[in-house]
Amino acid sequence: MRMSLGENIVVTLFGESHGPAVGALIEGMPSNVEPDLDQLVDDMISRRPGSGLASKRKETDEVEILSGVHEGKTTGMPILLLIRNQDVRSKDYSFLPNQPRPGHVDHPINIKSKGAADLRGGGSFSARLTAGLVAASSLSRKIIPEDWKIEATVGALGDLEGEEGIALAEQARKEGDSLGSRVDLVISGLPVGLGEPWFDGIEPALARALMAIPAARAVEFGRGVAAGKMKGSEHNDKWGENMSLSEGADGALGGMASGAPIHVRITFKPPSGISRPQETFNQTTGLMEELAIKGRHDPVIAPRARPVVEAVARLVIADLGIQGGYIDE
Amino acid sequence: MRMSLGENIVVTLFGESHGPAVGALIEGMPSNVEPDLDQLVDDMISRRPGSGLASKRKETDEVEILSGVHEGKTTGMPILLLIRNQDVRSKDYSFLPNQPRPGHVDHPINIKSKGAADLRGGGSFSARLTAGLVAASSLSRKIIPEDWKIEATVGALGDLEGEEGIALAEQARKEGDSLGSRVDLVISGLPVGLGEPWFDGIEPALARALMAIPAARAVEFGRGVAAGKMKGSEHNDKWGENMSLSEGADGALGGMASGAPIHVRITFKPPSGISRPQETFNQTTGLMEELAIKGRHDPVIAPRARPVVEAVARLVIADLGIQGGYIDE
Amino acid sequence: MRMSLGENIVVTLFGESHGPAVGALIEGMPSNVEPDLDQLVDDMISRRPGSGLASKRKETDEVEILSGVHEGKTTGMPILLLIRNQDVRSKDYSFLPNQPRPGHVDHPINIKSKGAADLRGGGSFSARLTAGLVAASSLSRKIIPEDWKIEATVGALGDLEGEEGIALAEQARKEGDSLGSRVDLVISGLPVGLGEPWFDGIEPALARALMAIPAARAVEFGRGVAAGKMKGSEHNDKWGENMSLSEGADGALGGMASGAPIHVRITFKPPSGISRPQETFNQTTGLMEELAIKGRHDPVIAPRARPVVEAVARLVIADLGIQGGYIDE
Amino acid sequence: MRMSLGENIVVTLFGESHGPAVGALIEGMPSNVEPDLDQLVDDMISRRPGSGLASKRKETDEVEILSGVHEGKTTGMPILLLIRNQDVRSKDYSFLPNQPRPGHVDHPINIKSKGAADLRGGGSFSARLTAGLVAASSLSRKIIPEDWKIEATVGALGDLEGEEGIALAEQARKEGDSLGSRVDLVISGLPVGLGEPWFDGIEPALARALMAIPAARAVEFGRGVAAGKMKGSEHNDKWGENMSLSEGADGALGGMASGAPIHVRITFKPPSGISRPQETFNQTTGLMEELAIKGRHDPVIAPRARPVVEAVARLVIADLGIQGGYIDE
Repeated sequence: MRMSLGENIVVTLFGESHGPAVGALIEGMPSNVEPDLDQLVDDMISRRPGSGLASKRKETDEVEILSGVHEGKTTGMPILLLIRNQDVRSKDYSFLPNQPRPGHVDHPINIKSKGAADLRGGGSFSARLTAGLVAASSLSRKIIPEDWKIEATVGALGDLEGEEGIALAEQARKEGDSLGSRVDLVISGLPVGLGEPWFDGIEPALARALMAIPAARAVEFGRGVAAGKMKGSEHNDKWGENMSLSEGADGALGGMASGAPIHVRITFKPPSGISRPQETFNQTTGLMEELAIKGRHDPVIAPRARPVVEAVARLVIADLGIQGGYIDE
Repeated sequence: MRMSLGENIVVTLFGESHGPAVGALIEGMPSNVEPDLDQLVDDMISRRPGSGLASKRKETDEVEILSGVHEGKTTGMPILLLIRNQDVRSKDYSFLPNQPRPGHVDHPINIKSKGAADLRGGGSFSARLTAGLVAASSLSRKIIPEDWKIEATVGALGDLEGEEGIALAEQARKEGDSLGSRVDLVISGLPVGLGEPWFDGIEPALARALMAIPAARAVEFGRGVAAGKMKGSEHNDKWGENMSLSEGADGALGGMASGAPIHVRITFKPPSGISRPQETFNQTTGLMEELAIKGRHDPVIAPRARPVVEAVARLVIADLGIQGGYIDE
Repeated sequence: MRMSLGENIVVTLFGESHGPAVGALIEGMPSNVEPDLDQLVDDMISRRPGSGLASKRKETDEVEILSGVHEGKTTGMPILLLIRNQDVRSKDYSFLPNQPRPGHVDHPINIKSKGAADLRGGGSFSARLTAGLVAASSLSRKIIPEDWKIEATVGALGDLEGEEGIALAEQARKEGDSLGSRVDLVISGLPVGLGEPWFDGIEPALARALMAIPAARAVEFGRGVAAGKMKGSEHNDKWGENMSLSEGADGALGGMASGAPIHVRITFKPPSGISRPQETFNQTTGLMEELAIKGRHDPVIAPRARPVVEAVARLVIADLGIQGGYIDE
Repeated sequence: MRMSLGENIVVTLFGESHGPAVGALIEGMPSNVEPDLDQLVDDMISRRPGSGLASKRKETDEVEILSGVHEGKTTGMPILLLIRNQDVRSKDYSFLPNQPRPGHVDHPINIKSKGAADLRGGGSFSARLTAGLVAASSLSRKIIPEDWKIEATVGALGDLEGEEGIALAEQARKEGDSLGSRVDLVISGLPVGLGEPWFDGIEPALARALMAIPAARAVEFGRGVAAGKMKGSEHNDKWGENMSLSEGADGALGGMASGAPIHVRITFKPPSGISRPQETFNQTTGLMEELAIKGRHDPVIAPRARPVVEAVARLVIADLGIQGGYIDE
């Protein structure tokens, strides 16, 4: 079982939610780049639990850089980023693996690992591991040209667009429930042609990486599912003066940047961890039994997934940028 | 630029729409498997152009097996599948690269390849290359256990569900236009735990492979975009008697099979190649000019993409099956 | 079972000695490069059987380029090189798999493939497959800067240095026997720093690729096995005026080019296929029995391996050159 | 720049000789395996500096397992092994990069990294990084069947076979000099057929991995360079009763295990770091100048490389064992 993203910049995650640490190993980072360590702190804060709509788990998320950076510059060698876990409360998970939580990975990974998986807090499947992703992505900021923009926003909370649904999410939490959501991603300024054909194209590469974010359920590009009901004469984006495209045009064609912004929408399911008691099967007793999950969970995913979406997209674009020679190795 | 899918069974596409041939090289196929050559012919017919709603291009799509099969059995060595192109009419594309077609890859690949790409008929980006995918996937049928089912159906044509929209598509064609569509995919019978964590999970792997099919614009898993408006108490799938799940439950959790069927919906844009004249930029004259595309094109994608979706899904599942030891190498 | 070399330029071999064809699929070749087709013919002739010390098999080795080249230029897409087999005499191999030939791969691959391997003429393990390697490497010539020199010569035939041992080899053939040999390789003109650390360094990459040539038994760099008896004060290469190194200095340090020429010596065993009868086990009768092999074989390997060594080294250096950004993708 | 070995069990090294830590990240380790932690300590001691012929650097080499092991068992997830550096004396290297050491990587990596490399003690090229390799390999012991034996011994010190040359090495150290050496490796008990064709064969895979050990200069298989002077009738290993082979027969044919033991000889150059003053170029002054290296170095490599050779071979064989299905994933 591998946990790696990228072909040129390869980011491999490691760690468990309730183990000693999480983090990432970055291979292929160009040498002589000065990581912005203040930005790294900011990026880690942006995804940190413990505030607003997020779970109550408190983590400082200090990132130790244990290799590959010397006198403030990347050496080109593998960079190890280590983030110690601190606020771990493992007694919450003693009901596992007997009575797996609905909508969680507990049961499949227990079977797959022949009973050896660390199930506490989702183990290696926990959103806690996105800390390593965000840290690794933060270090890649300096190799991405300034006019390439990668920005994610909260697209919807429940059925309210943008961040207007915050009250809905708060309400869901109070009811011991949770809410679905959406993150919108816009990537602009890429040189025409960046990307690769077929399975390594911008859309396939982004779709793969984004669908790996815990709880992602759909990825749409351009007009997305709405394109399924359109006519060609309506959907086709004509090339305008000097090969310009309108804002709504597809930003990737055949896997390569067209010159227009790339619009992506990522739908997240409502978090499966809810405090309201649920009935589910207990493998020891062989009975359906109530389960009340006492862990600390987010009532809605988009606000915390937003920086992760951005981080993942940045890594994918950096990887494709190096692949095509748009970024120096 | 690579055109490879898979880590254990690696399928690499090659060829151009108007070049001498297309095909696929398969690496990692287990030895001592007897490919079903009648099934191969059937599978090639199922995606062949020239019938019904498809384009008028006539191809027999005979597959030459030039290596890796000896006395009717796979040897375990690379298998070369070669499909000669026959009905090629290249004069249709003389307007390229000066006046790129709206919604096509002509312009990005022309830039990327420094002017050296074969643009005729979309070159290596043509749906013609799915012939190699379908052939390769057909050979993988024999290594997939019989109770693993992979089935794709036409989900919608325009705004009509199922295949009821055929008249809409026919109408679009008559108007020199085209129509969006959707393919629905169901994968069932997988052993619980099949799959991998994070970026190699079932959803990420399928999302990547399916988004590489020309004209795909969205991929949804389970309740897809609808999950974004649901509550956790509604979306959560409780584990039932003996760890069973209901039919509508998520078939993959954390990248691994849960035991329930996996439902995927793939949205395709309306084909960009329409016969109705379109205004688009001519780089030689520097003017917006009308362009009438004379090639032979499909008015709607789902009916022809259906076997390709199935082929791609089969390769992904075979690859994950070998990865986890569920299929013998 | 894969048969691929390279990370950036990926060359995958396919085919069997007595099947319909052999060849190679090249991925990652930069676009807009004009392959020299006359050079390709020359390169194929240089490794062709049927002359001098080589086996009597006659092959024209015409290379069909079936994808990835358009109007004389590479498109950047996968390039399929197909070489049909013509002079095949398969009746020679009817004693297999019952009585495997001494020193040949017949028995291990028969076990590994569960009896399904094509054993005729060595199947996919035949030196015939180097035709694909040489063809692929020939196409890479144009992307390698002119001042990077890669040259292989016959180092020794039996215990005579250089090509003076030809009479020895001829004598061996007359006696139904064969002779060991050595190829010497010199790579010069590489920019200082080309290469990668550890497992992807120049020496590891070359060692892997060269040891894959059939019958290779040893690879030595610089002073090779002689270095094992030297003192540091003797072996150390001082940096001279303007960081120059003497001709005998190690051409690679820590996997990267030092500026001095890289010297490599590759030892080949005497060909295992000899016409003199040999006693070996017959699995059907359970007895030791005489075996007379009627195939057409080379009495010594170096003269025919020489262009293959050069081809393999060129691919490795091209791959590392792209990896480090010394060659444009 | 990557530092990874293996396709199925992937070991990636990280760290610098004088940085905070070295270590390895292991991906693909099967789940539910109990690492032997006492053995891990023993393995680390076996390669530790500070005793006998080794350098005077003192390191406890305690291995922190920070992920992928839970309640004493592997979970199947990435395993992070961290080894803190302790006895670091960096003032010794202030002459770099101006006056690079003869035979060292200082100059090439300084050029390659655009001046950003950590040159102290060889940085990421230091033999210190073999600590991570040995630790990772130690954890792989439990997945290798008991009857597969992998054993390395000191083959020669200078021109004395075996360990008889210890006095020679001690003498070299006293003279401020160093000595070449050889390690002999024997791998036995592998199932016939283990291995892969061509570039992933046993010999290519071992040659690559072994040539990556710092200071390795030659790799020989079977009769090695001596095979270059033999005749086929002499070198050919007949298949004996029940397909047995004699002890001296080639243990790998065409990249796959033949049933006989595999014999490998690895030659190491004399260590380049010698205390005797050497004249070499100073890039700042533009003059040839004397350089006295004050670091702590080994006078001969084989005794310390011996456990590293074994570790590397174990990882290669484990990787090929998983690849062919001989070891359960």
